[in-house]
Amino acid sequence: MNPVAPGHDLAVDWALDESRDRSKQVLLAHGGGGQLTDELLNDVVLPRLANPILNAMFDSAVLPCQPQGRLAFTIDSYVVQPWRFPGADVGRLAVSGTVNDLAVCGAQPIGLALSLILAEGFAKSHLEFVLDSIHATAAEAGVHVVTGDTKVVGRDHADSIYITTAGLGVVPTDRCLTPDRVRPGDAIIVNGPIGEHGLAVMLEREMPEVQSVLRSDAAPLNGVIESLLKELGEHVVFMRDPTRAGLAGVLTDLARQSGWRVGLNEQDIPVRAEARHAADMLGLDLMEVANEGKVVVVVRPEVAGRAMEIFRGHPLGKDCAVIGHVEDRDDGLCVLNTAIGGHRIVQKPYGEQLPRIC
Amino acid sequence: MNPVAPGHDLAVDWALDESRDRSKQVLLAHGGGGQLTDELLNDVVLPRLANPILNAMFDSAVLPCQPQGRLAFTIDSYVVQPWRFPGADVGRLAVSGTVNDLAVCGAQPIGLALSLILAEGFAKSHLEFVLDSIHATAAEAGVHVVTGDTKVVGRDHADSIYITTAGLGVVPTDRCLTPDRVRPGDAIIVNGPIGEHGLAVMLEREMPEVQSVLRSDAAPLNGVIESLLKELGEHVVFMRDPTRAGLAGVLTDLARQSGWRVGLNEQDIPVRAEARHAADMLGLDLMEVANEGKVVVVVRPEVAGRAMEIFRGHPLGKDCAVIGHVEDRDDGLCVLNTAIGGHRIVQKPYGEQLPRIC
Repeated sequence: MNPVAPGHDLAVDWALDESRDRSKQVLLAHGGGGQLTDELLNDVVLPRLANPILNAMFDSAVLPCQPQGRLAFTIDSYVVQPWRFPGADVGRLAVSGTVNDLAVCGAQPIGLALSLILAEGFAKSHLEFVLDSIHATAAEAGVHVVTGDTKVVGRDHADSIYITTAGLGVVPTDRCLTPDRVRPGDAIIVNGPIGEHGLAVMLEREMPEVQSVLRSDAAPLNGVIESLLKELGEHVVFMRDPTRAGLAGVLTDLARQSGWRVGLNEQDIPVRAEARHAADMLGLDLMEVANEGKVVVVVRPEVAGRAMEIFRGHPLGKDCAVIGHVEDRDDGLCVLNTAIGGHRIVQKPYGEQLPRIC
Repeated sequence: MNPVAPGHDLAVDWALDESRDRSKQVLLAHGGGGQLTDELLNDVVLPRLANPILNAMFDSAVLPCQPQGRLAFTIDSYVVQPWRFPGADVGRLAVSGTVNDLAVCGAQPIGLALSLILAEGFAKSHLEFVLDSIHATAAEAGVHVVTGDTKVVGRDHADSIYITTAGLGVVPTDRCLTPDRVRPGDAIIVNGPIGEHGLAVMLEREMPEVQSVLRSDAAPLNGVIESLLKELGEHVVFMRDPTRAGLAGVLTDLARQSGWRVGLNEQDIPVRAEARHAADMLGLDLMEVANEGKVVVVVRPEVAGRAMEIFRGHPLGKDCAVIGHVEDRDDGLCVLNTAIGGHRIVQKPYGEQLPRIC
């Protein structure tokens, strides 16, 4: 078990932190709930994540309950290895993933909860890096971490840092983004090139010697999604973020749950050349690779053009594309029309193509 | 690293599960978001935790937003080792801990979120045991698991199972349970004998050969707390559950935050003889040992008697006691009047008396 990223700079950092200076490391005692826990909170955590609700430091955060709308509530654990990789880190990943899970349900986030499981010996400087990243990403999404917890386990009982984030959001009463609203003719849009998060992590972990321009796309999408929903309202019928199991996972689920055929055009799916090369090198199907800053949106055909304009007007949507349509066949299949004129039934990946990718 | 409890029966279970039958184990691929993840969810998780909101299986749970009151939001990770111990297991612990964090803020739970980090090779039968326990404890608390996530890491990268639970609750607008409401004369009540969770776990882990009647007290307290708050209203001024860092942690914090002296009478603090013996044997201060089914309640003196009656009328409060009072000295200290007539200033424990206790 190697708790550090294979990248050169990270290995150097870690060597310094392993310099026997325990004051610069997280200790088991930091998880004990006593004075040392207070110290870690006051010196490391609170200065980075401070906001009035978190600062109250009660056992639960207490938030105003907005009377209009329903609540969206989500949770995810992040065990990505390495914890830092080109384009992002486990902190940015956790906040983005949680905010996006709320956003695809039509919710605006009103608070995040953060729980850390740290391996003893994890450098405080690395923890600070992750917390800064959490803070910056939460600010980008316009939300605060309002409550949290920290546990520490022995150095052989976890890899450096595991993060669990829960998110709370409010869904306006008139919003409903469910597979049963989808119908033939609807356009399927993705906001940019696929597969880059999974590939960036895999390259960093498995082939650190390879120089690549690929970066994780991890980003909170609530801003661009809200623009879309505000303007197009009920013409937006379904959304999902293609994380683990990738585009194949989301679209096979959509076909199965809606009962309609989902038809995709391979040449319309945005893919960077570097991503195609990396996927070939790693033996991966790009359709199955995880994204962390992408959203699949299904809209009524009459607003597809306007939806594309809204995406293109936003930095996180400028390379968007219509990748296919819902077809008038009730076989519940996802079919890819390939670049050379063939057809391939897309299947949900069976198991673990990419372990520890998020 | 030994992923099983030292208890005899668990070791036997584990030996069976290690019998090379991978179909009975959790595999890395179960965490990949593909068909095997669906299979684990459909075969193992959903049959145990089913409810209409969870069954919808969207990226976020969507709950009705009740217009009255504020929202309480909390999160905690549970890394207790072993995962099963006399009186409870990590699942009961997680649900109880989260429900209690909501309850001490005056909130009734409206939904739980559950995230699992599993080590590859963890027996499915053990996972089923934990999920059954989560379901039973949530039912006891009158709440559902409404959303969740599962990640799997390699067998050397975690101990069997780590659970993170987030909780969402509603606080009636008129409730305020904060240290600044405390004033001299207020009575301090605890609902039963202290230290039993921490001792039960420590005995199981460190001295499995010792036969003891001690059991973890892990239990959801929202029922008895709600009875108290419904009847006594604003005469209840403060509550906290003495988990990590125990009674010493909660009461030193209360003294410091309120600015008043907290005076405790050692002979009034309920302690079972077995707990005292175990603490002596393990070299632990019972005041600092974690509880998971206890609450410290501060009430106005005129309702102390009635508060005790309400506790005594409930199975989780029948051994309650008034353990001290807030005194008219503004030194912010917590002072223990000992059984032999002395005084001891109680300090918050420095660090890790008991690692991996929750």
